[in-house]
Amino acid sequence: MPVTYTDITPAALDKTLTLAAQAFIPYKNTSLQARRDFLYAIAAGLEADRDGLAALAAEETHLGIDRLTGEVNRTCWQLRSYADAALAGHPLDCRIDTALPDRKPAPRVDIRKMMVPLGPVAVFGSSNFPFAYSTAGGDTACALAAGCPAIVKAHPAHAATSERVAGIVSKAAAAAGMPEGVFSHIHGAAFEVGKALVLHPAVKAVGFTGSTTGGKALFDLAAGRPDPIPVFSEMGSVNPVYLLPGRLAEAAPAVAAAYAGSITLGVGQFCTNPGLLIGIAGPHLDTFVSELAAAIAKVPSATMLHPGIAKAYADNRATALSQKGVTLVAHGTGGPEGLATLARTTGATFLANPQLYKEVFGPYSLLIECADAAEMLAIAGKMEGQLTTTFIGSETDYRENPALVEALEQHCGRFIFNGIPTGVEVSPAMQHGGPYPATTDSRFTSVGEDGIRRFMRPLCFQQFPEHLLPDALRDSNPLKIWRLVNNQWTR
Amino acid sequence: MPVTYTDITPAALDKTLTLAAQAFIPYKNTSLQARRDFLYAIAAGLEADRDGLAALAAEETHLGIDRLTGEVNRTCWQLRSYADAALAGHPLDCRIDTALPDRKPAPRVDIRKMMVPLGPVAVFGSSNFPFAYSTAGGDTACALAAGCPAIVKAHPAHAATSERVAGIVSKAAAAAGMPEGVFSHIHGAAFEVGKALVLHPAVKAVGFTGSTTGGKALFDLAAGRPDPIPVFSEMGSVNPVYLLPGRLAEAAPAVAAAYAGSITLGVGQFCTNPGLLIGIAGPHLDTFVSELAAAIAKVPSATMLHPGIAKAYADNRATALSQKGVTLVAHGTGGPEGLATLARTTGATFLANPQLYKEVFGPYSLLIECADAAEMLAIAGKMEGQLTTTFIGSETDYRENPALVEALEQHCGRFIFNGIPTGVEVSPAMQHGGPYPATTDSRFTSVGEDGIRRFMRPLCFQQFPEHLLPDALRDSNPLKIWRLVNNQWTR
Repeated sequence: MPVTYTDITPAALDKTLTLAAQAFIPYKNTSLQARRDFLYAIAAGLEADRDGLAALAAEETHLGIDRLTGEVNRTCWQLRSYADAALAGHPLDCRIDTALPDRKPAPRVDIRKMMVPLGPVAVFGSSNFPFAYSTAGGDTACALAAGCPAIVKAHPAHAATSERVAGIVSKAAAAAGMPEGVFSHIHGAAFEVGKALVLHPAVKAVGFTGSTTGGKALFDLAAGRPDPIPVFSEMGSVNPVYLLPGRLAEAAPAVAAAYAGSITLGVGQFCTNPGLLIGIAGPHLDTFVSELAAAIAKVPSATMLHPGIAKAYADNRATALSQKGVTLVAHGTGGPEGLATLARTTGATFLANPQLYKEVFGPYSLLIECADAAEMLAIAGKMEGQLTTTFIGSETDYRENPALVEALEQHCGRFIFNGIPTGVEVSPAMQHGGPYPATTDSRFTSVGEDGIRRFMRPLCFQQFPEHLLPDALRDSNPLKIWRLVNNQWTR
Repeated sequence: MPVTYTDITPAALDKTLTLAAQAFIPYKNTSLQARRDFLYAIAAGLEADRDGLAALAAEETHLGIDRLTGEVNRTCWQLRSYADAALAGHPLDCRIDTALPDRKPAPRVDIRKMMVPLGPVAVFGSSNFPFAYSTAGGDTACALAAGCPAIVKAHPAHAATSERVAGIVSKAAAAAGMPEGVFSHIHGAAFEVGKALVLHPAVKAVGFTGSTTGGKALFDLAAGRPDPIPVFSEMGSVNPVYLLPGRLAEAAPAVAAAYAGSITLGVGQFCTNPGLLIGIAGPHLDTFVSELAAAIAKVPSATMLHPGIAKAYADNRATALSQKGVTLVAHGTGGPEGLATLARTTGATFLANPQLYKEVFGPYSLLIECADAAEMLAIAGKMEGQLTTTFIGSETDYRENPALVEALEQHCGRFIFNGIPTGVEVSPAMQHGGPYPATTDSRFTSVGEDGIRRFMRPLCFQQFPEHLLPDALRDSNPLKIWRLVNNQWTR
């Protein structure tokens, strides 16, 4: 029998956030080593309960055990890599400009700068990643690595999993002697809870992964505070894929096979799911479409994350398919309409109907057949901000379409050459973000260690004696971190 | 006879911004060397006209020729140092994670990330720095160094100076073969012009230096766009100075002399002007106050930047002095009330009256006499976000007041030890920013090369063949820039 969680009361929320605020200074002042060990302990706790966590999440999310076990592993990797980055001092981004007492016309005083944490961070867990972008997921790991207490609002669709993960985090915090309030976990199915969280004076930044409506609402609330705070909302995208003839001529079946997998992976419930496939009419595109259609037709139905998502998918798919000039090419097995879906339209139809740009969250993709390269360029020019954009083409295609390449770069955070957008590497070079409406601030990422920077700000120390400076800024560099000293990187 | 400039019409503004949008791609694709040379050429143009510029600005702003000549020099230094930073590749912040084809459970593909420019940037020139934070000032230099076209709205208080500087920039752009629209200069005394600028779809970011009201209004407009864009508004602060007894015991007269200079420098018209001096009652504070009062009493009156600022100063000073429990300690010479002003109140009075926290822009400072260290801590705890906070104290004072030190760090972008806040170094370690309401985003700076990052975003290239990558990301590192490669900094 599913456990029911009650929304936190305003009084309890205030108490929780007061504790988080009180935890900030002591937590910020823990050593990088202590913070690293804390994050490692969370990872170890998750690993120790991996099977139990995966089984519980499978019940709540209907994602498979293998995927969920892999996601626990990924979450542990994330926690450890951000912990390593914090220990290595990358997020501190230290700059030291030593005094120039003899400079003319005026001497330069000693100034040194490092990044410091912003304060308590509110994290809104996502529905589609019950581990990696939820309770102990990317935003929480970034906040804790930065030195910020985290307050996580569980996603109601996997509240029990969230609660179980929160228990592991809290246990690790207590064992590591971290201040009470360094991590808090709350439930709140009602929007009012999220609203109160974002508006509370103790909260200094927000991380969110979810819908455009939800992410934008939190952004607006934060911008309207007496003291506006930064919100990084990752709101998904249609991740357009541009199919150029040169590559399809070489490998249409292989590309189709890769995309059948990418479109339907995790029942299509990824932020990086390829929702639009844009090709140029011709025999190679026809081959690609028929291969893709054949693969999609074999994909069995599956249960989506929660009934709300399943209903939205059914509704949005029906709306998309009912648009004039849109035809159904193939759907998967199981039930009269299957689940995985490939639809098709022309470039002219697409350009004329803004409804077709909208994301259909799930295993749905729309193939757009352009009359020519000019029409493809026109579509690229109208595209909104995206997490990813993919160029499927030969090197000649790439070189011969510079205007298209420029247009694609302008609208995405990650630009992929002959690959698939699903599968987001957790490493320093990753960018999981993009121009609005993919996110609310294209200058940051929610995946990879640079995500830690969302929750930090620079603090400059001027004319401080060496022994009063933070360790990170001392001449002797006791933390052995990379720093820009008098404009040269050095360790 | 002063020249009058007409506000730009909506149609002309649209045409200007369309040109800026068209200039974006070709300008972004210029080489780092070409961009560096362009910024250097602007600096050379300013230097060639230094005396003429200073003379014209003196007429418009009433700032002295020496100060203005120095400001032209500083502006040239700024342009060149940001150009050097761009050429050195610092703002590109490159990360390279090479492929790991044999990694288990899944291989890693090659991913590489660099910062790319956001697009056209709207710059609002400040009134108090006709060169360094105006037409070819910090925001413009950051935008151009980032690879973004800049559209500058002249400050109406020095429109002719702005026009003359704009002519120099435009000439340098033409000589360097930069695309038309890389730099534009508009006039607009009406708020409607600024509003139209921030709301125009071609504008992708905003830089502003000025009042809280103005900066917050632009922030709100930008946040309310269909596609919200980042706004860095630097809105000034009261720059509190905490005077601890240990240092005053050693050097009250020297500290007083330094602060008399800092309070009245440039007729007090700096964002970093020290508006609050917070001390603990006792003989050393009395010595400091009497020395400071004597120095302030000798400061001659002067003409402020423009009549609006002079009137606001008179009104705000009168309001501050009329508050219950506030007394006038000293004022400068010239006229019955002079201009430079030192007022005094108690900690208890200050804590009870929010009006006293407000900035009085000009050569005004309020001395707050706290009953004890606890009262000083209470004041620090209530302080809003600041550009700078200064600790005047002995090393023992610093060590013995950890809670005070923590509170001060939380509320400022630059923390100064036994120095003065005026004088903002242009170097990588500078932070000219701070928690709201000092700025609209504490994570960025408007001074120093890191200010360039305000106008850039990361773009990740996944699975690209070496020869299709941008130069900055190629294995061979043809630009010879510092990059984080497989988590190690290397050149």
